[in-house]
Amino acid sequence: MSDDRFKHGWETVNRINAEGAQRQWDALSAIAPDFARWIVESAYSDVLGRPQLPLRDREIATLAALATLGNAPGQLKAHVHGALNVGLTREEIVEVLMQMAIYAGVPAAINALQIAGEVFAERGL
Amino acid sequence: MSDDRFKHGWETVNRINAEGAQRQWDALSAIAPDFARWIVESAYSDVLGRPQLPLRDREIATLAALATLGNAPGQLKAHVHGALNVGLTREEIVEVLMQMAIYAGVPAAINALQIAGEVFAERGL
Amino acid sequence: MSDDRFKHGWETVNRINAEGAQRQWDALSAIAPDFARWIVESAYSDVLGRPQLPLRDREIATLAALATLGNAPGQLKAHVHGALNVGLTREEIVEVLMQMAIYAGVPAAINALQIAGEVFAERGL
Amino acid sequence: MSDDRFKHGWETVNRINAEGAQRQWDALSAIAPDFARWIVESAYSDVLGRPQLPLRDREIATLAALATLGNAPGQLKAHVHGALNVGLTREEIVEVLMQMAIYAGVPAAINALQIAGEVFAERGL
Amino acid sequence: MSDDRFKHGWETVNRINAEGAQRQWDALSAIAPDFARWIVESAYSDVLGRPQLPLRDREIATLAALATLGNAPGQLKAHVHGALNVGLTREEIVEVLMQMAIYAGVPAAINALQIAGEVFAERGL
Amino acid sequence: MSDDRFKHGWETVNRINAEGAQRQWDALSAIAPDFARWIVESAYSDVLGRPQLPLRDREIATLAALATLGNAPGQLKAHVHGALNVGLTREEIVEVLMQMAIYAGVPAAINALQIAGEVFAERGL
Repeated sequence: MSDDRFKHGWETVNRINAEGAQRQWDALSAIAPDFARWIVESAYSDVLGRPQLPLRDREIATLAALATLGNAPGQLKAHVHGALNVGLTREEIVEVLMQMAIYAGVPAAINALQIAGEVFAERGL
Repeated sequence: MSDDRFKHGWETVNRINAEGAQRQWDALSAIAPDFARWIVESAYSDVLGRPQLPLRDREIATLAALATLGNAPGQLKAHVHGALNVGLTREEIVEVLMQMAIYAGVPAAINALQIAGEVFAERGL
Repeated sequence: MSDDRFKHGWETVNRINAEGAQRQWDALSAIAPDFARWIVESAYSDVLGRPQLPLRDREIATLAALATLGNAPGQLKAHVHGALNVGLTREEIVEVLMQMAIYAGVPAAINALQIAGEVFAERGL
Repeated sequence: MSDDRFKHGWETVNRINAEGAQRQWDALSAIAPDFARWIVESAYSDVLGRPQLPLRDREIATLAALATLGNAPGQLKAHVHGALNVGLTREEIVEVLMQMAIYAGVPAAINALQIAGEVFAERGL
Repeated sequence: MSDDRFKHGWETVNRINAEGAQRQWDALSAIAPDFARWIVESAYSDVLGRPQLPLRDREIATLAALATLGNAPGQLKAHVHGALNVGLTREEIVEVLMQMAIYAGVPAAINALQIAGEVFAERGL
Repeated sequence: MSDDRFKHGWETVNRINAEGAQRQWDALSAIAPDFARWIVESAYSDVLGRPQLPLRDREIATLAALATLGNAPGQLKAHVHGALNVGLTREEIVEVLMQMAIYAGVPAAINALQIAGEVFAERGL
């Protein structure tokens, strides 16, 4: 059953950001392998992989949360890629991050948009 | 032109949560009237009222941000109402807030869900 | 296998704060039952219930985290009970929370100590 | 020498908010007496009582910090009193807190202004 | 009228940190041009440019907020420049940031002071 | 008496992380010498150096706080060294930081573990 959760979680991870996920898995497995597995099973399978909300909507929520936290630039970058991968447009991502100026302050929104800008440049958008 | 911005902002506010907005306006106008007006114009007209993203998607982002902040229970409650008003279901709201356990921690998610539960009870959902 | 995780998680919860856990379970199950179960399995069984660190040490970390967050007074209160239940003394809890003045600021430490004071009074310490 | 620091800290506390300080001292002394003393000596004498910056400027900084934190309403209320006591006007306090909308987000500013409004009402401003 | 707001906002920006503002404008305009304009109009004209509080006092509040947030080093650096530009001395800036140890914790104060130290070195102070 | 506090504080600092402390002292003394001294006396002597809790337990609390804050990577790195120096094992440190996923979110835990991984690599653990 844990194998099913891992498989479902890994599929969810790959739909969002396959390349980033593999890199994250490799780095984290070397330090805390049980935690790397827990993230796939308990975060990506049990929560993010639930069918009650489409991944596009989930990525809106994730972008908002990470921009609000303001201290996880690597994860934000990975999820800007993820948001594009599950169907959000560049314009929609800009709207979500710009909106964070209202809730988390202007610096949080600026810093998130600069990270998004790096992703847009990498992907030639 | 400021009048247009105020009018557009107030319409946006009312689409999200008319009752809560009036109460907030009355309370804030008594202390900082220019700021009450700024919120309608600069937040609700210039940002949240932009047509590039539907209000349903914006409320997902707002719920995620407020649950992540964890220190604005009044605003979170108002936006759970708002989310329902612009078309999110009870089930979708629960998904967004539950997902915040991954990004902002379990206490943030629990406390947000308890606030949402109060709104669901008020509305007989 | 999920049943084993639930059972192990529930045992861990009960070792920390049986009364608080039941109340939390009842409240959360009415709003988000899958999340209530996830907390028992993924938080209390998979993380807090791991044998690599004794619960006494884990409660020191939890008190520090909750005092630093500063926006989860209910959870902090439950874990002051929990810390006492797994063997920390009143004096040790005061030391941990006082230390948070250095990392999270004086208001965070004061507010956490006031919550701890309520628990000490409830338990006649 | 510690007595001098305590005396100087207590004088500084009293210039800011004598009534609030006594209440805070009484409450905290019952739980963590060494910490209550540390706050007077290390916070109010060694830092806030330094002559390099007038208390009026220090209270601007304190209001900004507490509004940004957003999770210390008791301390914010005490320092709105303090700000008035050391010479800031109601209008200046509103400006500082309104400005926090830019740095910490609109909910943080609204919640801080509502606390300030309570103080203004108590003092008949 | 929007043109007046932009003009007033840009003048305010330039009084605080002309060089940093131009660089920020260029970077942000390439990603989110409407947001770049919104910051000038809604943040710098409507809030920071209000005459009710002098820019010197506003920069004290901004330094306190950014040091407390702790996750906007670029903005903090720009506003240490800004604080010096509107009349705060090196010594006063150190006092404000040191005071943040009390409200936001020692690491926040240390990290802010190290950023300030970079600015002091750049300007030969 | 201040000399005794400084001496006791410096001894405490050195038990935790002598090399990091000297580097921190040198950097901070050049910008804010009174604050560098205050940290040794008021933080390390008066709080962290209190005998009521062993340094091993204090470092658990410090790791939890710094991982929760998520914006003090330099201090977290110094205290992973410190935790090892006062007797925590690599495995115990991983447990504490992994546990922070529950309280502060998964990104906070991942980022803290990556910092810990750098320290483990430096020390050949």
